[in-house]
Amino acid sequence: MSVHTDQPSVTVLGLGPMGRALAGAFLDAGVRTTVWNRTPGRDAELIARGAVPASSPEEAVSAAPLTVVCVVNYDASDVVLRQDAVTAALKGRTVVNLSADTPERARDTAGWAGRHGVRYLDGAIMTPTPTIGTDDAVFLHSGPAELYREHRPVLAALGGSHTHLGEEAGRAAAYDIALLDIFWTSMAGYAHALAVARAEGVTATELAPFAQGIAAILPPLFAEFAADADAGTYSGELNPITSAASTMAHVVHASEAHGIDASVMRVIEGQARRVIALGHGTDGFTRVAEMVARR
Amino acid sequence: MSVHTDQPSVTVLGLGPMGRALAGAFLDAGVRTTVWNRTPGRDAELIARGAVPASSPEEAVSAAPLTVVCVVNYDASDVVLRQDAVTAALKGRTVVNLSADTPERARDTAGWAGRHGVRYLDGAIMTPTPTIGTDDAVFLHSGPAELYREHRPVLAALGGSHTHLGEEAGRAAAYDIALLDIFWTSMAGYAHALAVARAEGVTATELAPFAQGIAAILPPLFAEFAADADAGTYSGELNPITSAASTMAHVVHASEAHGIDASVMRVIEGQARRVIALGHGTDGFTRVAEMVARR
Ligand SMILES: NC(=O)c1ccc[n+]([C@@H]2O[C@H](COP(=O)([O-])OP(=O)(O)OC[C@H]3O[C@@H](n4cnc5c(N)ncnc54)[C@H](OP(=O)(O)O)[C@@H]3O)[C@@H](O)[C@H]2O)c1
Ligand SMILES: NC(=O)c1ccc[n+]([C@@H]2O[C@H](COP(=O)([O-])OP(=O)(O)OC[C@H]3O[C@@H](n4cnc5c(N)ncnc54)[C@H](OP(=O)(O)O)[C@@H]3O)[C@@H](O)[C@H]2O)c1
Repeated sequence: MSVHTDQPSVTVLGLGPMGRALAGAFLDAGVRTTVWNRTPGRDAELIARGAVPASSPEEAVSAAPLTVVCVVNYDASDVVLRQDAVTAALKGRTVVNLSADTPERARDTAGWAGRHGVRYLDGAIMTPTPTIGTDDAVFLHSGPAELYREHRPVLAALGGSHTHLGEEAGRAAAYDIALLDIFWTSMAGYAHALAVARAEGVTATELAPFAQGIAAILPPLFAEFAADADAGTYSGELNPITSAASTMAHVVHASEAHGIDASVMRVIEGQARRVIALGHGTDGFTRVAEMVARR
Repeated sequence: MSVHTDQPSVTVLGLGPMGRALAGAFLDAGVRTTVWNRTPGRDAELIARGAVPASSPEEAVSAAPLTVVCVVNYDASDVVLRQDAVTAALKGRTVVNLSADTPERARDTAGWAGRHGVRYLDGAIMTPTPTIGTDDAVFLHSGPAELYREHRPVLAALGGSHTHLGEEAGRAAAYDIALLDIFWTSMAGYAHALAVARAEGVTATELAPFAQGIAAILPPLFAEFAADADAGTYSGELNPITSAASTMAHVVHASEAHGIDASVMRVIEGQARRVIALGHGTDGFTRVAEMVARR
């Protein structure tokens, strides 16, 4: 007995914080959602909301034309997808891999998919779990444009903005690593600042509004420096790297005077000092973008 | 012949990009502005706008009850202020030092001022030069509250928000180094991301809108992690540090595969790995704030 229905359906493999958020958004949008996770028991709340549990990944991927994979990295997605039974069940179906990894691994997975008749889109999620299903979510995709267009309506259930960056499989991962670079480096700066502030008797809650003010000045500077970097000008007219290096040294000294490890800022100050020593002291800090790639 | 006038007046010492922006904002607000800079010639545009040039710092500080100093750091402000003629001329007058340095140097300068009858406020500027004179400028101050209240009306000519953080001289510098820590670490992440993106064939201009999206997700995370840090909970429920470390490794691998120096992210990943090894793998990344300060 087969029930004909227009209800879209999807399978979600991986039920960590992000996989659960994705499955939850599909359910909220009325998409029939089959779920599976390596470690059992993570699906309880989703089942209560209407998700269909699968007892194996091959059973899971057989339940829908589209499988979304969201596990820690591609070592993990390989373990799940590259089992004979799963690979066979995926033949003719589509996988969207929203796990994070390098462009190289994305290209390798697209190659595996091609060899096994699996239709493959790579992707990346650029926003935290609470944004999933809301306008604030940001998804990046790469792979065959036609395949993207075909599945775009179901992916829209995840909310937010979806951008197809090109047909080359590694494109989404390329943006992903660059953006994670900004994200984790910024978060490292914040975590360190909380330690320095605490040592100076300033609580995280006291610092937070000012820290948010710093985040607020980044977007216009990012745009300005992007134009500068593409033009190769790296202008320091408004803030020369000599001035920047001086304030970096203050951060190092003040941190270490409190016994706080300042190795991140030591590396950053070192990069600035090298730019200065290479004769670019009147340039802006973004000249570092060129220096780190120097051969 | 002395002219009685209610026109407020100020002296600005230091005419780098920031000193010029400050003097320009004072002029725009109708404040009589005397200017001096170590290297002559930086005052031409300001003089054309009505600034009064001084031929020495002692002449400059004698021209107004309030002197704003904005040079590269306190080694430089010491060179300017701690000359006998300048110190003598400052007696009974007020100095607001808006140069950046450590809390220790701010306290030391307050001590020097106290010993010489100089009224002293310390301060810091948290926004770039184009914000000066606009609502977007952010100024932090510390020192005697009464002195701050007295000069607040003239300082208001600089625009933006002014916050008096307390009487202790080093307080503004404490916030300043914590905030510069966030700022330069974030900028280092961005500069590095531009290099990685370029190696992957993505221009800075293509990356910029997404980079701005990353900046936009920071403020709510900063607030959330501040509460977590003050409570000592460092929750990793939505994003465990094991997941974070995995994506950091992707940044390192992808960078180094292109011959790009990844030493900043290597240090950050190392901090995350140590947090995990210390038994906090299910915590969030901000647990690093505690780890860097570990004794
Ligand atoms: N959380 C966020 O805010 C966020 C934001 C943007 C992107 N992402 C990305 O989304 C992906 C998933 O993240 P997450 O937050 O859900 O947490 P995560 O800790 O990165 O991933 C946890 C998931 O990976 C699975 N997994 C790990 N190793 C496995 C293996 N060898 N075989 C099969 N499954 C394995 C886990 O299964 P078990 O339950 O069996 O361990 C669990 O389902 C990651 O790539 C992450 O970078 C997360
Ligand atoms: N630019 C910004 O976006 C920004 C933002 C926030 C805070 N700040 C802070 O504002 C302060 C000034 O910054 P800036 O942008 O104007 O550029 P800067 O390069 O930090 O400082 C340049 C000024 O310092 C003077 N100076 C340097 N060494 C000196 C010495 N030994 N004796 C006397 N004067 C000396 C320079 O005089 P000469 O012309 O003679 O070299 C010039 O007036 C710094 O502490 C900076 O951190 C700047």
